[in-house]
Amino acid sequence: MSSIMGNKIKISVFGQSHSKGIGVVIDGLPSGKKIDMEKVMAFMERRAPGRNAYSTKRREPDTPEILSGLVDGVTCGAPLAMVIYNQNQRSNDYNNIMDTPRPSHADYSGYMRYNGFNDVAGGGHFSGRLTAPLCFAGAVCMQILEEMGVNVYTHILSIKNIKDDRFNPIKIENFEIGKKDFPVINDAKGNEMKAEIEKARLNLDSVGGVVECAITGVKAGFGDPMFDGVENQLAKNIFGIPAVKGIEFGNGFNATTLYGSENNDDFCIMDGEIKTVTNNSGGINGGITNGMPILFDVAFKPTASIYKKQNSVSISEKTEKELQIKGRHDPCIVPRAVPVVEAVAAITILDILI
Amino acid sequence: MSSIMGNKIKISVFGQSHSKGIGVVIDGLPSGKKIDMEKVMAFMERRAPGRNAYSTKRREPDTPEILSGLVDGVTCGAPLAMVIYNQNQRSNDYNNIMDTPRPSHADYSGYMRYNGFNDVAGGGHFSGRLTAPLCFAGAVCMQILEEMGVNVYTHILSIKNIKDDRFNPIKIENFEIGKKDFPVINDAKGNEMKAEIEKARLNLDSVGGVVECAITGVKAGFGDPMFDGVENQLAKNIFGIPAVKGIEFGNGFNATTLYGSENNDDFCIMDGEIKTVTNNSGGINGGITNGMPILFDVAFKPTASIYKKQNSVSISEKTEKELQIKGRHDPCIVPRAVPVVEAVAAITILDILI
Amino acid sequence: MSSIMGNKIKISVFGQSHSKGIGVVIDGLPSGKKIDMEKVMAFMERRAPGRNAYSTKRREPDTPEILSGLVDGVTCGAPLAMVIYNQNQRSNDYNNIMDTPRPSHADYSGYMRYNGFNDVAGGGHFSGRLTAPLCFAGAVCMQILEEMGVNVYTHILSIKNIKDDRFNPIKIENFEIGKKDFPVINDAKGNEMKAEIEKARLNLDSVGGVVECAITGVKAGFGDPMFDGVENQLAKNIFGIPAVKGIEFGNGFNATTLYGSENNDDFCIMDGEIKTVTNNSGGINGGITNGMPILFDVAFKPTASIYKKQNSVSISEKTEKELQIKGRHDPCIVPRAVPVVEAVAAITILDILI
Amino acid sequence: MSSIMGNKIKISVFGQSHSKGIGVVIDGLPSGKKIDMEKVMAFMERRAPGRNAYSTKRREPDTPEILSGLVDGVTCGAPLAMVIYNQNQRSNDYNNIMDTPRPSHADYSGYMRYNGFNDVAGGGHFSGRLTAPLCFAGAVCMQILEEMGVNVYTHILSIKNIKDDRFNPIKIENFEIGKKDFPVINDAKGNEMKAEIEKARLNLDSVGGVVECAITGVKAGFGDPMFDGVENQLAKNIFGIPAVKGIEFGNGFNATTLYGSENNDDFCIMDGEIKTVTNNSGGINGGITNGMPILFDVAFKPTASIYKKQNSVSISEKTEKELQIKGRHDPCIVPRAVPVVEAVAAITILDILI
Repeated sequence: MSSIMGNKIKISVFGQSHSKGIGVVIDGLPSGKKIDMEKVMAFMERRAPGRNAYSTKRREPDTPEILSGLVDGVTCGAPLAMVIYNQNQRSNDYNNIMDTPRPSHADYSGYMRYNGFNDVAGGGHFSGRLTAPLCFAGAVCMQILEEMGVNVYTHILSIKNIKDDRFNPIKIENFEIGKKDFPVINDAKGNEMKAEIEKARLNLDSVGGVVECAITGVKAGFGDPMFDGVENQLAKNIFGIPAVKGIEFGNGFNATTLYGSENNDDFCIMDGEIKTVTNNSGGINGGITNGMPILFDVAFKPTASIYKKQNSVSISEKTEKELQIKGRHDPCIVPRAVPVVEAVAAITILDILI
Repeated sequence: MSSIMGNKIKISVFGQSHSKGIGVVIDGLPSGKKIDMEKVMAFMERRAPGRNAYSTKRREPDTPEILSGLVDGVTCGAPLAMVIYNQNQRSNDYNNIMDTPRPSHADYSGYMRYNGFNDVAGGGHFSGRLTAPLCFAGAVCMQILEEMGVNVYTHILSIKNIKDDRFNPIKIENFEIGKKDFPVINDAKGNEMKAEIEKARLNLDSVGGVVECAITGVKAGFGDPMFDGVENQLAKNIFGIPAVKGIEFGNGFNATTLYGSENNDDFCIMDGEIKTVTNNSGGINGGITNGMPILFDVAFKPTASIYKKQNSVSISEKTEKELQIKGRHDPCIVPRAVPVVEAVAAITILDILI
Repeated sequence: MSSIMGNKIKISVFGQSHSKGIGVVIDGLPSGKKIDMEKVMAFMERRAPGRNAYSTKRREPDTPEILSGLVDGVTCGAPLAMVIYNQNQRSNDYNNIMDTPRPSHADYSGYMRYNGFNDVAGGGHFSGRLTAPLCFAGAVCMQILEEMGVNVYTHILSIKNIKDDRFNPIKIENFEIGKKDFPVINDAKGNEMKAEIEKARLNLDSVGGVVECAITGVKAGFGDPMFDGVENQLAKNIFGIPAVKGIEFGNGFNATTLYGSENNDDFCIMDGEIKTVTNNSGGINGGITNGMPILFDVAFKPTASIYKKQNSVSISEKTEKELQIKGRHDPCIVPRAVPVVEAVAAITILDILI
Repeated sequence: MSSIMGNKIKISVFGQSHSKGIGVVIDGLPSGKKIDMEKVMAFMERRAPGRNAYSTKRREPDTPEILSGLVDGVTCGAPLAMVIYNQNQRSNDYNNIMDTPRPSHADYSGYMRYNGFNDVAGGGHFSGRLTAPLCFAGAVCMQILEEMGVNVYTHILSIKNIKDDRFNPIKIENFEIGKKDFPVINDAKGNEMKAEIEKARLNLDSVGGVVECAITGVKAGFGDPMFDGVENQLAKNIFGIPAVKGIEFGNGFNATTLYGSENNDDFCIMDGEIKTVTNNSGGINGGITNGMPILFDVAFKPTASIYKKQNSVSISEKTEKELQIKGRHDPCIVPRAVPVVEAVAAITILDILI
């Protein structure tokens, strides 16, 4: 149950960081859709680690192998299954018990959930590595969405206290932002962000940030009231991305500091169509799209894996114990999380539209 | 699909603001649980309108009538169904077409979703009135949770820019907060909030705010990774409450401005148990509880129904048109939303624990 | 979970035989559909008891009260909720423990499932009375199906060893069969069946039978392979009707005694359309409709409640004990089950088509 | 949606007959369970083709490769993913359009469902080959069930008109039946069945049959009333096996020819426990187990692929056309279907019990 999402399009993600492979089964794709694998690979590359100074030095050659669901590159209606073979597989003699859990990681909660049998190597099923198959699934869904005139855009809205500009909430025009090496609207701010990340890295520390996402081209009238609205479904799925701790739509938390007269979106007629003058609602009212861009922000906490010494415990002995984390970890996962948010948004919105 | 939530405990909410009745069917409750109806009524009373100066003057005598599921006040395993008969039922000659949608309401998106057949009287199925059955269901679930040692606490964290104190994230002790007429920790701040609401009311305007929720007594190891974690499910359901535009867990958006070394929760041994020194994670890591209180904030936008003139359109004529809203509306729905958040949290967490 | 069915159209049934009310919430109906309540009532009347000699003497004036979901008789997109108030409500002093379970009833299994807290009065939630709301939901769905050119027909195929004729599997023409007092194609066989039922009644015994159902007007290409096919979904829901012990599609069990060359449905061109010469597949191949009528048989066991003395046990004392059942029970529930099969088929197929 | 089953344990099957691989993702398995891969392989071997005279000559070396979910052979709580690489992969120049559908196959309905884009090579996703991953999943679940004292037994109940003995419905003792080369209770009848299959083969024809399944060790009180009962779930999943056209529980269709006094299961005390004297109910009353063995029969139609000439059509030209099928097909799939029924029963019952 845990690793499956969606109603009509179901995404079943599998794999652990050091298992033989990781992958995804996508059930419910419409048939007859040509999938451009080069575009899929280019999208996945945006998430890949080791591309530059501010991400980890590990280099994963994530080559997805299609197991089923395509005939001559075209969806045939059967589930589309994909596997990426892991380069770093766990050795059999790996110590199964990570007795000293890393603060703010899923080590301890996972230990309690799975009675100590969870795969701890490299984070196991909780690893950020599992976002690679998510990106694959998102890249596939995005190609189908584009045919329908729907697009998804994301950028880094903030790193620590440094803020990028926001998308124009009425009309997104940052079409190429996903192709940027460091996806911000304001490159000067981007340079400040990079410096902040570098500073954290040198301090053996980490920083977090916010990703802004915009979905355009969705007509009014999609979604449902109450528990299956567009906000509900996006929120449910976005929290499936590791390190996410918050989501807000339109003005979000900021709306709570405004008067109704400031926050309400007046209607107007634009090019003969009903639109709103502002888009503080983020394109959704009562769980249902209103035809304006869907806008939401996602909060990513700072990477939990830091090289500074931390206080932990021995689970078996119930004693306090110092911990120093090794391995290679991003001082900030936000840049690599940008395409993941885009992917999950694409999967979710296709599930709603189809 | 839209109005049903839950996996093992399923809540099916029905009704429109002016339909004959509104209610809920709760499927999957454990059998043999004595339900104290006086406590249920007392809980529902916390949401009831017209109790004081800062809420609407309407007075709904919301008397739930149990249709099934209880035998001598004890759950029998069959679905527990409840109806509240509406006092204000729509007359047959009600104008079915609300041609001039209210800004930031679901009038327009609902019109598009239902091709103009949606019930617009009093907000129809989108009405805040539908939170009454939610509170009923929540009150029932809460009694079962209490037996399990689990409690849910909520208070107003902010109204506009005025902030209440936070719960102690390590150990909640505000047991009686729900019984307060105006549920804040710091009553002085509460008085400022009331003044702010009154000011908005006099200005024919409205204000929003944030509700903080804490769930205590949940042991480590509940929930699932990825898409069915505790955060995912709480988020999905909380967005079912009208006017919610954001949710964050633990430090939430604030975590994005901290270093990892500031945000990570070090482990410690307390009374022989593994705990964390801080609770910036809000009790959840990797979607799974870690034994600390579950903490989250919910953002409520200012009431969309304000008495100031606003710019709208005629849907049929596609022309711009001024709109002046009548009827009785809360200048701030946050105080009444407090028990609703509590109810949805209770339903969701019981569904996870059972 | 137990009492909810469907994917896009969700049916949530509630009530016990002697609770205050029984009813149903239908979530996901398309908006803008005029529901003819007289036709709904006429359909429900087909299931009503006490209409004639071969059914129980009880007379339930089942008047459904619409609580929500309709505006001026037209679906508004919000859940359609309905309640029927029970005339025979359990008195508070009803003995909650039925210690002596009726053979082949759900008394014992229900006792074990609900730890003795299940409502035993009149069969509780397991009562055949719960098929009244199912018929309501089916009658509503059928009106929407008819607009789409889809019809559902059912008749008694057999009572004990007496067999009615079958529907013409290629082209159903028994349009009025549902309106018959005793719904058989061959009235002479119907008279024999009635005599068989009367004989059982006089012997303080009961008989069962088979209901044949045909769904016409469904084009080729609906359904899904593997676990969500048309057969899977119909089977899942049909077993929700009390006393059903088997289901078969097309030739069903009889197909196992034929050669492939006898059982295969050759294709042909009829009126310019691709059809099959025979319809041994019952309109479904690989879980997906092929454009021929969907045909299936449903086996109803003889009524478990018989007046003959039977051997039971005392659950509390774990001793054997004789049992003589009182109350009023149909010596054969098949005639009244006919519209229930029709209703469940209608709900299921609408869920698939919508 | 189509290829996923289960509530707590979710099985997602992927692959086409000639795709690169076929496989399954099992989500929700309890952690800490040692899986004996040799037993899994031995179980899968029971389904493998080409083992003897009465099955097809093709030989598939179905070697499952575990991608994730196990650590040192023990379930770690993460999804267990498995792939079998196909030996016969489709060439790129394969003619994508099978214009002449095989009678009683999913060729035509699949064409209509997927607008002609379905993979027709070797039956695509509808192929019986997809039962290999089902057997894998079943074999895994069965090991967990055995630990709980639950066992599943299946045998051929009939081939055409030749009937095997039935399991003793009160106490199953045919523990080794699954290991038989030709799984019948009565070997003399088995020889007659083999002769019947051989006769069909020589006539370029095929035969079907019935499989009986018994699940033992399930205590009373599992399942749910109405739509999620044990019968509902077993029926839903069993119809996921290709060629199944009917299912019946306990006496099933035969119960319709009996009097209630003959069909009812009297209670008795046996070894201090409440049992029933007979087991005509097949272990289930009101959707809930009663502690007796769960018994059901599954009808398999004769193999649709026969070598005799048949009448088909050209889909593109809408003209009638003769068809002669080539390739290698079992004249009777029932022997190989026996472990598949066992597997699906195991998966379903584990999902209910867990």
